[in-house]
Parts: sequence; C-alpha cells; structure tokens
Amino acid sequence: MTLDHPASLKQAAEAIRSGAISSEEMTRAALSRAKASQRRLNAFIEIDEDHALSSARQADAARATGRNTGLLHGLPLAHKDMFDEAGRITGCGSLIRAGHVAMGTSTVLARLGQAGSFSIGRLNMSEFAMGPTGHNHHHGRAINPIDPERITGGSSSGSGAAVGAGVVLAALGSDTGGSIRLPAACCGTVGIKPTQGRVSRHGAMPLSFSQDCIGPLATGVEDAWLILSLISGPDGHDPTCLDAPLRPLLDGVKGLRIGLAKGPLLQSLSDEVGEAVQSAARVLEGEGAELADAPFSHLEAVTELANAVAMTEAAAVHFDGMRKEPERFGPQVRMRLSQGLAIPGPLYVRALQIRSVMLARFLEQSFAASDVLILPAMPFVAPLDRDVDVGAGSRMNEVISAMTSLTRPFSYLGLPVVTLPVASSRERLPIALQVVARPWREDLAVSVARHLERVLALSPFTLKAAA
Amino acid sequence: MTLDHPASLKQAAEAIRSGAISSEEMTRAALSRAKASQRRLNAFIEIDEDHALSSARQADAARATGRNTGLLHGLPLAHKDMFDEAGRITGCGSLIRAGHVAMGTSTVLARLGQAGSFSIGRLNMSEFAMGPTGHNHHHGRAINPIDPERITGGSSSGSGAAVGAGVVLAALGSDTGGSIRLPAACCGTVGIKPTQGRVSRHGAMPLSFSQDCIGPLATGVEDAWLILSLISGPDGHDPTCLDAPLRPLLDGVKGLRIGLAKGPLLQSLSDEVGEAVQSAARVLEGEGAELADAPFSHLEAVTELANAVAMTEAAAVHFDGMRKEPERFGPQVRMRLSQGLAIPGPLYVRALQIRSVMLARFLEQSFAASDVLILPAMPFVAPLDRDVDVGAGSRMNEVISAMTSLTRPFSYLGLPVVTLPVASSRERLPIALQVVARPWREDLAVSVARHLERVLALSPFTLKAAA
Repeated sequence: MTLDHPASLKQAAEAIRSGAISSEEMTRAALSRAKASQRRLNAFIEIDEDHALSSARQADAARATGRNTGLLHGLPLAHKDMFDEAGRITGCGSLIRAGHVAMGTSTVLARLGQAGSFSIGRLNMSEFAMGPTGHNHHHGRAINPIDPERITGGSSSGSGAAVGAGVVLAALGSDTGGSIRLPAACCGTVGIKPTQGRVSRHGAMPLSFSQDCIGPLATGVEDAWLILSLISGPDGHDPTCLDAPLRPLLDGVKGLRIGLAKGPLLQSLSDEVGEAVQSAARVLEGEGAELADAPFSHLEAVTELANAVAMTEAAAVHFDGMRKEPERFGPQVRMRLSQGLAIPGPLYVRALQIRSVMLARFLEQSFAASDVLILPAMPFVAPLDRDVDVGAGSRMNEVISAMTSLTRPFSYLGLPVVTLPVASSRERLPIALQVVARPWREDLAVSVARHLERVLALSPFTLKAAA
Repeated sequence: MTLDHPASLKQAAEAIRSGAISSEEMTRAALSRAKASQRRLNAFIEIDEDHALSSARQADAARATGRNTGLLHGLPLAHKDMFDEAGRITGCGSLIRAGHVAMGTSTVLARLGQAGSFSIGRLNMSEFAMGPTGHNHHHGRAINPIDPERITGGSSSGSGAAVGAGVVLAALGSDTGGSIRLPAACCGTVGIKPTQGRVSRHGAMPLSFSQDCIGPLATGVEDAWLILSLISGPDGHDPTCLDAPLRPLLDGVKGLRIGLAKGPLLQSLSDEVGEAVQSAARVLEGEGAELADAPFSHLEAVTELANAVAMTEAAAVHFDGMRKEPERFGPQVRMRLSQGLAIPGPLYVRALQIRSVMLARFLEQSFAASDVLILPAMPFVAPLDRDVDVGAGSRMNEVISAMTSLTRPFSYLGLPVVTLPVASSRERLPIALQVVARPWREDLAVSVARHLERVLALSPFTLKAAA
C-alpha cells in the first residue's frame, strides 16, 4: 500500500479526507496504472483522462470548502461500459452503440457520484454483456492480469481485469448468469451478485430484465460491501427495485450453519477446486460454524430455465437490431440472438411462471439445514484462452457451458451470492468460492466471505505476488 | 314483468325484500325457464336445482330473521363455467376439466355471494374460453335465443343465451378479445368489459393473464353496472387488481364529447350496422352531446399484437395438457394452441413491451377530442351458424377474424367498453354498439350507454318480442 495506491476504499477515502494526498494525485496515479496496463490488459474501452482529472479537482475544491461528506469522496473508480451517465457515451461493448450518448444518468452511477467517486474510463465487456468468457469481437478481449494466456471471464471482463490488476479498487459489473462472479473468480477479486431486486437497473443496459443484477467487483470483501450498500435501495425510476435494507454484518461465523452443496452438478469439479472448497469449509468449522450437507438437485433443469428466459429476453431487447442491421453484431452474439429468436413464447412464459415454485423448492431443500451454502464459482480454474476462443471447436462449447453451470442457477433463483478467492492453484491461479444466501440476506453471505478473507488473506495483491 | 320474472335486479331484489315473493318462488321460476329452454338453447352445462333451491331457502330464512342486507339478496343468477366455487365443479367448457372440483372460491363469486345471490347452474362456454363463435366440441354450441340459426358469439356463449332469453337477469362472463362483448352483441344484451385490473381474477380460469377481464352480461345497463360495482375493487389474492373506485354515473350526456371511430377497420361495416351507429350518434347529439371524429389508425397492428399475446399465454396455460393429452382438447382448440406454441418468445416479449406505448398513442390520437368513443361491436349482425362452423371452409376464418376485429384491440389496450343493442336489423337481429372510455372511466361509457338505452328502449325483452 502506498498513499496513491491504498489497499482499500476506506483507506483511500481517509487519505483524502485527512489531506495526506489529494484526489488529483490519487487520480493521476490511477490513470498512470490504467494507461500503463492498457496495452497488456485491454481492460478499458476508453480512458477519459480529462473527465477524471476535472472530477478530481472538483473533489479537491469541495474538500477545501468542507463539502467532502461522501464515503467515497475524491476516489477514482471505473465501471463496465453499460451504465448511463448524462452526456457521455455508453457503448455496451458493441459496435451498434459505440457512439451512443446517454440522455440521463443511471441510478447506480448517480449514487456513487453522490458518495463522491467518479470514473476514469469505461471498462471492457462482452458485447451487450452476452458471453461468459469475456471475448469481444469489436474491442478485443480483456487479458487476465494473473496469467495472460487465461481468460478474464465475462461479461464484466474489464471490471475483473482492472480490479484484479489493482488499476482501481472497485468497479461495477452486471450479472445475468455469472457475469460478475466469473470475472471475479478468474481474476481473483471479490464480486457480489445481489438479490434480484436490490439494486436499481434504471439507466443500465438491459440484457434479460428478469435476471439482470448490478453489483460490485472489488479487491476486498468490505469494499464490495461498501459499494453494494451505496447503490442498493428503492428507486422511483425502477419499480422492480424493492425496499429491503441491508442488515449489519456479523462479527464471526460462530453457530452459522454452512451448507456444502452436494449434487450431480458438483461431481465434475477438478481435484484442486474440490479440495479448496473442503478446505474453506474446514476453516469455517474451525471458527465455530456448523457444517451440513446441502442437497442440490434439479439444478440442471434450473439452468435450462435460466437460459430460456435469458435468451428470449435478450432477443427481445435486440429484436429491432437483428431485423435492421444484424451484420453489426459480432458473429458469436448474432448466433446467440438467433437462437433466442427461436425459443417458443409459451416455453418462456412457463419458465417464468415456475420460477417462484423452483425457488420455494430450492429454499426448502437446499437451505433446510443451512444459513448459507458454499460451492465453487466454476468447476475449474480460469480456462486458457485457446480452449474457449472461436476456433477451439467442440471443446469450446463444453467449457463455456461448464463455466456457467454453477453460477447460472442462482440468477434464475434470484439469490444473493458473494464470490471470493479461497485458494491458489498449483498453477498459481485463483480458485473462487460462491457463498449463497436466502433472498435479501447478503449480510450472511458477506459475513462468511469476510471471515474467510481474514483467515486466508487472499486478494488480487497476494495472488498476483504469488503468480 | 311478473313477480317471479322481474325486469331488473333492483326490482327483483325489492320484490324479495318487501316479501311480495320469496326467493324460493323466484328461483323455482328461474329453474323452470332454465329447464324449459335447455333443449332449445343449450345454455347450461349443468343446472343445479338442489343447490339453487337450498340457497334460496337459506336466503328466505335469512330474510325472516332480518339478515337480508345484500343488494342481490335471494336472487338466482348463473355464470360462465369458469369461476371456482369451493367444493363444486368448474369445468371450463372442457373435457379435461369436466370433473374438476374447486378447492376455493373465486373472488367474483364470493362477492356476488356476499351480496346475497347464488347460482342455478354453470353456463356453456367455448372450451377454455377459446373461440369467438361459441361453438363447443364437447358440449355443443349454445343457441341464439333470437334466431336459432345464428351463433351466440363466444366465448361466454351460455351467458349470452341465458341472459338474452331472460332465464336469468345477469351472468358473469370473461373477455380476453371480445368474449363478453360478442355474445352480448349477438344475443341483444348489455355487456361490460372493465378496465384491465378492475376486477380480481382470483379463482377464475386463466386464458391470457395479460388481457383476461371478468365482467357482467345483463338485460339492462343499470343491472350490468350494479354487478360490476359489486365485483370490482382490490383483492389481496390478485395483485394485478387495483384500487380505482368507480365514479358515479352522469345524469345525461349534455356536453360529453362523443368520438365516432374512423379508420380502415371501420370501412367494411354492413350498411345497417353503419347506419345504426350514425343513428345512435344523432340520438346522443340530440341530447346535448358533442360529436367528433376519432381517428383509429394502427388498430390492425394492435390486433396482431393482441393475438400474439393471447395465443402465447394460452399455450403456456395449456402447455402440460398439450404435451400429455392433446387428444382431449377439441380439434379447433388444439389447432389454436398448436399455433400458439410456435410463437417466438421475443415477439411475445416485444408485444407486451410496446403495449403501454400503443396505449399512450391511442389515447393521444383517438381520445384527443373525445370523452368516449363509439363504434360497432361487430361489422355485421350475428353470423349464421353454417357460415362459421368447422365445415364452412375459407369463409369461416374470414368471418371469425372479422368478428373480433373491433373488440380485440381494446383488450390489448386494456380499455373499458360497454356493449349494448342500439338497433334491430331488417332480419330483426340486434345491432350492438361499443362505448369505449379511457382507463378506469367505466362511469362515462356506462352513462352514455344508459342514456341510449333509455331513449332507444331496446333490450332482450323488446328485441325478442320484435323477432
């Protein structure tokens, strides 16, 4: 940790508040990291130096007159290229929207702005957030900061790369089937996919409105929690966003019931991923948590339902685009949208109708003896780029499908999930855990994650140093 | 009018309240009419004499002890076979549900029960409310009481026949694309399709949950209004049912702006239908209303959208049935459900997404200079059965499609519509008008309808006498 590159949002905010460093100095440092790493990581679609520096100077001026009340006052961040900010471009990682200037500001950016932060640029992402690997036909893929031959995961690829590389301490992403959790897992960061309905989607690019969630990637659990607490809560512009206040975190895990997911989906884990989960469970048990088995049946069906809903709604979003200018989509995205166009309407309606039934069953079965569930974020470590790129043949689809097999069910079920690194593989790659809670109980999942983080002391900083 | 066959619900309730006649006597008379007409009209799927008489005796006993406070105390009614009543059969005009015993009671029947009325039997309907002609493969069609060679219209075919024939004074129906308005129009009764969201659908058979509305058919406008006022209003069991109280009716039409619908859809009216609308407009003008032209464009597109939504949702309702026992649906219904199964999901999503846009445009354009709009319920009088029955060839589809061309748009738009007879054709068949209001303004449409009824003095009684 240095003054211009603190280890947490809280430390960074305190450094500015105390006058130890100015926002401009801290922002210049972040811009330097962004520019220096851009050729290597391709994390940004645009680095906006002028905007960042003028925002930083405003923050310094506000501090000088005592108007620095926000918890993120003066802090430079960066976000996935899909959140509107009035008068600025929201490109959605696409060609079609590459020059689209937003009329208004998304609720999430407005709230982070009220807290005093600003953006140094727009982060890379899968085109229109479609695709779990982070490849992008138009902008090129973001590169995994731990191992350049590995994918970052997607769709919040730039968020994973920029936070994983320590360019910024936190970044917003979105998650419809794993798009926060997968890049967090691949790049060794923390990610939170909140409960469906906790964070307003007003002014954010839609992909599948029934499953889209906005949340943070950050270098530590408390930072992710802080960002989540700032962007959460009801919003007159988004009637799907509900008023369910976050509860305070627990101090430890004593007495908490931790369910270890057991079921067909979890039988093809790589050895080291399986061991990492067991090891995390033992850590929690050692700290006073009670372990239980959590049966996970029917989750393959849930994955199919989640896919049907996501593909139908995505194809509806891009219905006119596919009719008028299909050639402007990247080939992979165009193929996925074409598949979505062919899903029968009644199947889609049924998939939505049985969602609450499936959730009720899942809570009854899998949460019967548990407060939170733990399972890996992926069955394996971050795949090699060559195994999932377009030319990779049949292996590609297999890997991509397995990548989301453990994340997608919780999107359909609408449950909150925290992802964090819990081990380093033999190849020095992060192995990430998902901690899943009942609806609205982010506090429990985050409490468990924070405890694991304290004991294991793994973060992008330590992972990178080890790699 | 006789004591055991009063001309209105109000007169009937007053006769029982005053002791001029008992509920049992009135009910026996209704049962006699039901049984006497059943072979001729096939209006009932089941006449339940025991239930009716025991309910009547309970009503008489209650009156004897002063507990006759409901506005419909002791009145025998009958309803479309699709509203649950605990412990009794809801057959939905189908074979598949022919023996289905309901666990709970629908909100509409519970409210009519609280008002003191009861049912003498279950009325015929199109199978699962699919089909605007009133044909039913399993139970046979209901017969038009004015001309047995004519169809009743559907899907509330038995409601049209039973009310049109004066067997009961009022009956509930449901309307997803015209299913209250068409039988009302064909059988010379009044019908109200309320604003989408005014009447709870709890415990009612779903067809297309985005467009299904429950409402009354009755022999007069005030009776229909009374039934509507009793069944309306929020319901904890149906979150789509909103709290928007009905406003009191106006005394006349002076100063009301009446929009005459003009547009492509209205260019193929039969001469006498066109003249009847003009004549009704002149009546209203004579009473002090102001006439205006109301442009009706894009309504063909609205019809397509309404169809896409209805067919998709219907196919979702019957998804499992079509998979497990398709042979138990009637051939016409099976064909329509098969078509629904093939509608692409994204098209359905888009059709729902642009609904509010289409409504806003319609209100802006067609209601620009009008408080209510008037147009025919159908472009022609009740078709001959032989022109729309299965063997009728290509003419069949053409007539069926034209039948709903003027009703279906208002289902998609969610607007309230009152239908009433405004003329008798050369063949002595009713010609029916639709009076359409802005959302939640049933009061205006009903006020106009009541005024026309007073001036024109047309009802099932007078129409039948003339026929």
